Amino acid sequence: MSIKSWLNLVSAITRLPGIGPKMAERLALYLLRHPGETDRFLNVLNTAREKLAYCPQCGDFVETDGSPALCHRCQDPDRGNEQICVVEEVGDLQALERSRAFHGKYHVLGGVLSALDGVGPEDLRINVLIKRVKEQSVREVILATNPTAEGETTATYLAEILRPMGVSVTRLAYGLPSGSAIQYADEFTLAQAVEGRRHFN
Amino acid sequence: MSIKSWLNLVSAITRLPGIGPKMAERLALYLLRHPGETDRFLNVLNTAREKLAYCPQCGDFVETDGSPALCHRCQDPDRGNEQICVVEEVGDLQALERSRAFHGKYHVLGGVLSALDGVGPEDLRINVLIKRVKEQSVREVILATNPTAEGETTATYLAEILRPMGVSVTRLAYGLPSGSAIQYADEFTLAQAVEGRRHFN
Repeated sequence: MSIKSWLNLVSAITRLPGIGPKMAERLALYLLRHPGETDRFLNVLNTAREKLAYCPQCGDFVETDGSPALCHRCQDPDRGNEQICVVEEVGDLQALERSRAFHGKYHVLGGVLSALDGVGPEDLRINVLIKRVKEQSVREVILATNPTAEGETTATYLAEILRPMGVSVTRLAYGLPSGSAIQYADEFTLAQAVEGRRHFN
Repeated sequence: MSIKSWLNLVSAITRLPGIGPKMAERLALYLLRHPGETDRFLNVLNTAREKLAYCPQCGDFVETDGSPALCHRCQDPDRGNEQICVVEEVGDLQALERSRAFHGKYHVLGGVLSALDGVGPEDLRINVLIKRVKEQSVREVILATNPTAEGETTATYLAEILRPMGVSVTRLAYGLPSGSAIQYADEFTLAQAVEGRRHFN
């Protein structure tokens, strides 16, 4: 193929996360074959890029028309400042909100520590978290990073910083996911489910 | 979440083919968090939308700076006009080219007949194909639509139109894919492999 702008488009789409070369070709074709849909997509993307900012406190998205403001959760007087739930990304926050199990404040790190990807503590929103714990009446920090090697490393790093500050540092429970089958659970999950077993009430 | 432009972006991405809601959230986050990469992607997409046109004969992409021209394959004197290989989409053409098994001309339909999606013969490049067969010295039309229900319907429809025109109408062989295992082949593929069996040379 000597069609440069087609090849460039496919390779640009392949660089997006989780998209392989076949999927990229399919998307490229769709974007070129549906000009109306593509115009709408580009409008929505541009609006989102213009309007969305980050809450300067928790790091969640906030819709803005100029000056940065706290998000609605950080401004909500019904959510106490005693508990901060630390998550990697906005999607984690949304999933926890859907569970309705947590009613405190959040803190979005914006990623995890990763030697491989060159992400160090200065790349995450850790200083803002320390400031919040120091200046607000925080009693508990729940580390809700993902149960992955990098999530673990990040949680361990944060715990070592936060514990000396006199705050209770907790972690989400590990174990069998609801609705799963023991037969098909991986060994690490099973080991953690045994280790974390509770009294049967 | 009350963040409208975020929700709009995620739902616009979900409308793209093959992308579910989780993947859409991941892509939305990526596009917002990597402004430099996103700028580059938008540039490449805009260039492709501007520069790419369709070859008026075969329907493949052709890079243009104004007036529409035949693509390099349609202009290639080493490719005879005797054989036309009819494919659904540009990606099929590219896959066949990679196989180096066909050296004639192509014809991209731009889809398949689909009652479900409301795609009729007038939505595909069928009239141009008929014109080519009528006006050029075509001896064989190879129907290389996909081995799906819709691909079959489209091939049957085309064969009924083309056969009376005195042209030989053929179909790609069905059977076991190279490197596959009989044990795991589906029953239709196996039935077709038996039906289409050849003498062992």
